[in-house]
Parts: sequence; structure tokens; C-alpha cells
Amino acid sequence: MPDVIQLMTNLTAVTLTDEAPYGLIRDAAIGVAGGRIIWVGRREELPQDIAKSDPVDMGGRLVTPGLIDCHTHLVHGGNRAVEFEMRLNGASYEEVARAGGGIVSTVTATRAANEEALLLDALRRADALIAEGVTTLEIKSGYGLDFETELRMLRVARAVAARRPVRVKTSFLGAHAVPAEYKGREDAYLEEICIPALRAAQAEGLVDAVDGFCEGIAFSPAQIARVFDVAQELGLPVKLHAEQLSNLGGAAMAAGYGALSADHIEYLDVPGVAAMARAGTVAVLLPGAFYTLHETQAPPVQALRDHGVPIALATDANPGSSPLTSLLLTMNMGCTLFRLTPEEALRGVTVNAARALGLAEVGTIAPGQRADLAVWDIEHPAELAYRIGFNPLHSRIFGDPA
Amino acid sequence: MPDVIQLMTNLTAVTLTDEAPYGLIRDAAIGVAGGRIIWVGRREELPQDIAKSDPVDMGGRLVTPGLIDCHTHLVHGGNRAVEFEMRLNGASYEEVARAGGGIVSTVTATRAANEEALLLDALRRADALIAEGVTTLEIKSGYGLDFETELRMLRVARAVAARRPVRVKTSFLGAHAVPAEYKGREDAYLEEICIPALRAAQAEGLVDAVDGFCEGIAFSPAQIARVFDVAQELGLPVKLHAEQLSNLGGAAMAAGYGALSADHIEYLDVPGVAAMARAGTVAVLLPGAFYTLHETQAPPVQALRDHGVPIALATDANPGSSPLTSLLLTMNMGCTLFRLTPEEALRGVTVNAARALGLAEVGTIAPGQRADLAVWDIEHPAELAYRIGFNPLHSRIFGDPA
Ligand SMILES: [Zn+2]
Ligand SMILES: [Zn+2]
Repeated sequence: MPDVIQLMTNLTAVTLTDEAPYGLIRDAAIGVAGGRIIWVGRREELPQDIAKSDPVDMGGRLVTPGLIDCHTHLVHGGNRAVEFEMRLNGASYEEVARAGGGIVSTVTATRAANEEALLLDALRRADALIAEGVTTLEIKSGYGLDFETELRMLRVARAVAARRPVRVKTSFLGAHAVPAEYKGREDAYLEEICIPALRAAQAEGLVDAVDGFCEGIAFSPAQIARVFDVAQELGLPVKLHAEQLSNLGGAAMAAGYGALSADHIEYLDVPGVAAMARAGTVAVLLPGAFYTLHETQAPPVQALRDHGVPIALATDANPGSSPLTSLLLTMNMGCTLFRLTPEEALRGVTVNAARALGLAEVGTIAPGQRADLAVWDIEHPAELAYRIGFNPLHSRIFGDPA
Repeated sequence: MPDVIQLMTNLTAVTLTDEAPYGLIRDAAIGVAGGRIIWVGRREELPQDIAKSDPVDMGGRLVTPGLIDCHTHLVHGGNRAVEFEMRLNGASYEEVARAGGGIVSTVTATRAANEEALLLDALRRADALIAEGVTTLEIKSGYGLDFETELRMLRVARAVAARRPVRVKTSFLGAHAVPAEYKGREDAYLEEICIPALRAAQAEGLVDAVDGFCEGIAFSPAQIARVFDVAQELGLPVKLHAEQLSNLGGAAMAAGYGALSADHIEYLDVPGVAAMARAGTVAVLLPGAFYTLHETQAPPVQALRDHGVPIALATDANPGSSPLTSLLLTMNMGCTLFRLTPEEALRGVTVNAARALGLAEVGTIAPGQRADLAVWDIEHPAELAYRIGFNPLHSRIFGDPA
């Protein structure tokens, strides 16, 4: 039995296919069957077999691909509100650390939380994203930093997809930080915990990509490369937190592994940009962390454009440097803080975010794509990035998850 | 017949009375009757007559006063998304102006919109604020700049209060900008349009306060003083957009009129701070405009603290410099961009915001106050300012509007 065809009419389709601006089609129709888009175009050009279906009138609204948050740390225990308050009351970093603050506090809280508690917290954050039209999100491990907890975080990430109509891609981020018990013994941590946990998580089917944090306060490019070698051996794609606070050449190193993305990259230089362009590595910009940390060096947006590096935007949702769970606000921050155009911002949370996750069948409205769609009560797609703290989502359509 | 007593128990009361931190009471109970708070304190100290009422279990949640947005331009026609996009695509101010952009475009759209259209748009924005626990908001005129439209905007502001469970205080802002037809004839505009419209609006019961924009691109202190003289004659309190882009001494001038508030004040100097302190004028900080305009000079927060000037925070919701409709995000911006503490941010959208509106009976949880309350799914009040783009509101209670 052929799938029933759902036909939507009286809408503006923001397809985000190659044609600028926005791949926009006015007076459009979209046909869906079996959770896939089977047709999109001007209504007057609808083929006979689709045109005979009963149409749903979309009230002249804008329809975009479902939004994609391609970089989150959505699963974690606790929050850092008290630390936030301490700092604003003038506490020094030492005082915060003595009070158990910093990433250590999140690691402690995450280790202490069971799967159900982690899931309940993660679902609240996922629901905030979903309420803004998100249909795909990435979730990292990296607050366990021990064998059990790294795997537990990834199981919780998979459980988010089981509980909500949203696609979840996981990234193993064992190389996020060095836990207190391995302080000064980064290599031992990688050999004894991180890499064994990666192998076990992969064997359990929990890993879609391998990530790391390449920075003076975390791991060197050579250390990250050891983890990436294992990823390669396991057939897993890689991505990297790189050049956030300094330029260690991490993005270029990751590009050498054909990385899906290099993320943050405020301090990326032009050779790094060129290496990413050659490898087709996506630049994932994270303005929430830039904003929260009062950074002043913006990522090299013009160089990325000049070299044709695809630009994505993500929340970086995490309890320390970016307790942000609004992808719409992230779009506004991308424009306001990094001078992206509203069209770049929208492509950054759809087609380019899909690419940063290695997903070809979401992020645009085109025949064959998953029918992940967001319907908006707006007249112009630039409104999505223009408004601040306002959610004009009318409804969300989630294509067949199968 | 005495009013029925509603008793809430199993909650943490964030009273925001004078006692730091937060006037917080754990294991608290709140008694309400006739839309007023009749008792708040530790549950074990509940008086007999209230304790016998059937309690509502608040599940251990935090209860704060309902939030107050004390500076908005919520009523206006159109939006400026296309202008936002033009600028990010590199258009100069001249090009934007030639395309009809800037405040002129909002004035044109507002004049063209009838009362019903303006109301529908304003209600969408009001609903976004209400969804975050707002129970009182201020709305200004100032995009009409002609007799009819200034009055229409204020009628729409009153209609928001009639349609939604929210208190609305109006400010007449005829001295917001000089309309194109009076270019170079500011004094004539004030005499022929602004002041007659103010008198008519007041006669119609539409005005709770009188506001102005004191800046090189708008009106001088002497011109604002002419409007304030009329306000004084009519018995209306005043407030002022002052020292946003330069220091013209507007805040001190307004303080001389016993102004309720001086708003923006990035460029305020210490004598201006001292004048505000003497007059009891509230400093209303507007980080959304600071963020959107890429300003670098923050308001003199430490001097305000040193002189004991109460600090409020507001969205400045407007289509040009602050298309922001989240008071929670405003709290985060107050902390992140202006280094307020989370407690200052919360007092800034409750007790001090009430004072900026001349309201004594909202903004705290205390006997006699209106029972405007917000119930939050959080454990610590600092979480309200810490998170970005996340709404932990559980429910909202609106006291008797009578
Ligand atoms: Zn991250
Ligand atoms: Zn304003």
C-alpha cells in the first residue's frame, strides 16, 4: 500500500537549497509521504497525482526545515547558578574553586546522578529547544570523565530520542577535561579511561562521532590525535572544540582527519581556515559562550566566507560557559555579536548544522529529505534572527524517525 | 462576607523585602485574601485563623513577586527585520534611510495601523512577557508623533490590560522624536502636537506618567523641561530616556522634577548619580539596547550602588534598538553585560521596577501587597538570571486587579 500523501498549501517555503535568498518559494506547496518530502515548489506547478490530495491550508505562514542544534552538552548534573552568583559578587577564581565550583562541580554532580535524574533534567532542556522548532540535536558526553559516567551520559542522550520526537546525534567527548584524579597525567587518563570508554561506548552503539577539547587547559593536538586515531580505527567521524581561547592549530589538525566540524574557532588563523575549506570541515560558531565569557575576539567570519567554509551556529548548551537553550537567540547572537547575516544564521541552524553532524537528509526542504519542518507566524525569514527572546513557532512537523 | 483565605505552603518565599539575601524564607507559607497578601512567613509560625484553611502544596517551589517590566514600547506597528538584514548585508545608514528604514518606518507603520491591528501585535508581545511571570508592565506612546496616533497607542495600551490579567502603566512619550513633517522645528512640534496631545490624553484618562527622549538626536533638556512643566501642571509624574549616547545632564534635570526614573544612563556622571539619589529617582538599565547597538560604555553601576540609587532592569521592548520580549533574558544581560548580581537583577524586575512606576503595592511579598506572584521550578533564585533562553515558570498568580 502506498503511503498517504499529505499536501500543505498556502505557505512560503524557505527551502534553504542553494538559491539565494533563502531558497524561498512564495505561493508554495509541500507534499509529504512516509515521513519524506516528495515535492516542493510553486503550487501552480503541482503535479496531478499530488494535487488531488486534500490540502492543509498553512495560513500563508513561513515553513523552514526543522532547526538543528549541532553542538550541545545537554546531558549533565546540577547547575552553576551559585557559582555565577559568587563571581558577580566578586569572588576570585580561587574562591570559586575552593567552593567546589568550575567544571569539577558539574563532573561531581553528573557522576552522582543516576540515568533517570540525568534524563529528567536533559528533557527539560530538550523541550525548550523543541518548543522553538528544533527537530535534530547533538548531545555530547564529557562530564563523566570516568568509564561508567561517560557511557551513562550517552545512554541518556539516546533516551532523549526515545522519549521525544527529535533526532539525536551523540558525540563521545571523553577528552573534554582531565579529571582531578588524573591531574598532570593527561596521557594516562587518555589511555586508561578515555580510549577504553570510547571503545566500550562504540561497542554498545552509543557513539555517532568523537569530539575533543584542544586547548592549553585541556588537551594538546598530539593528545587529541591519539583519540582521533582510535576514532578512525573504529570508523567514527571526528569533530573538535578548537581555537576557543588560543591558537594551537587544532582545527587544522582535525581537518587532517576529515573532521565534520571545528567548533568555537575564535582564534583560528587563515591557514587553519584554508585547511578546513580543503577538508570540507564545517565551522560551528558558539556565540553563547562568547557572550557569557565576555570574549572580545570574534571568529574569522569573513575569512570563512572567502574560503567557502560552511558556517553553522549552535547553543553549546552547557552549565558553565553557555547555559543557553534557545537556538533562536543563538541566531540573534550570531548576527549581533559575529555580524552574520540573518540568512547565514538560518543556514547555520539548518543545512550547515546538518552537515556538521554528517546528516545529508535533513536541513533543507527538497524531495527525498526527511519531513522535519518548522512552521512560523512570521512574514520574512529575517524575523527569526531579528527578534530577541520571542518564539514565533506555530507548529513543528517531525518526519518519520525510522 | 469576609474573603476566602487561600493558603499556600511547602514553598520558599523570595519576598525581596529589605533583608538580604533576597528576603528569602524557607519552609514558608503565604496567605492570600481578596487579591492581597495577608500573611507570609515560616509555616510553623502561621497564625491559627489562617492555618485552618485548606493549604495548596506548592511542591517546594520558589515563589517570587510577579515580575515587572517597567520600560517597554510594546505598542507599535510593523517590525524592522528587513532593516536588520540590510545592515548586516553592509547597507549604510543612508541606504537604510533611503529604503524608509529607521524610526520613520515604525512611525509610518504605527500611523497606518488601526487600534485592532496594534492591539493584536501588542498582545503577542505581552503574552511572551506574561509567559515568563510578568504581572505588571509599562507601555509608552511615541511612535505616533501626531495627535491621533499618540492617543491611539495609549488606548491600545489600556486595552492590553483589559484583555490580559496584567497591570499596565502608561507613559506619554510624545517627545520621543521629531516627525519628518516638523524636521528642524522641534519647538513647534512640542507646542503644536506633543503638548496638546498630552493634555488630551490626560483628559481621556490615558496617562500615568510623562516620558521624553533627551539626546542630541531628539530633544534638549530645555525642550524636555517644557513638556515636564505641563506634566507638573497636570499632576503627572515624569521619567526620562537620558544619557544613552551622550551626557546632556538629562537625568539631573529630570531628578529636579522628582522623576520616577531616568532610563538607559550609560553616560551618566557622578553629579547626575547624586542628583538621582537625592530625588529618589530609580535608575532603569536597559541592557537589550546596549547589546543590540554594540555599545561599549556600561552604566555607572558602582556609583549607583555607592549613592544608594535603586536599580531597575527592563526590556525596552521596541522594534529598532531592542526587539526583546524576555525579562528573564534581560536579567541575564544585566548580570553578564553590566555585572549586576543576580539579586540586584531580581530586585530590578520586581521591587525597584515597581518604584520606577510609582507603584507601592506590587514588587514584594508582604502583607497588604497585591497577590501578584510567580512560581518557579528552580531551587535557588540566582537561577533566574543564570540561565539564558530558558523559562522555568511553573505558574503565575494575578491578584485582584480592582
Ligand atoms: Zn562545547
Ligand atoms: Zn525606551
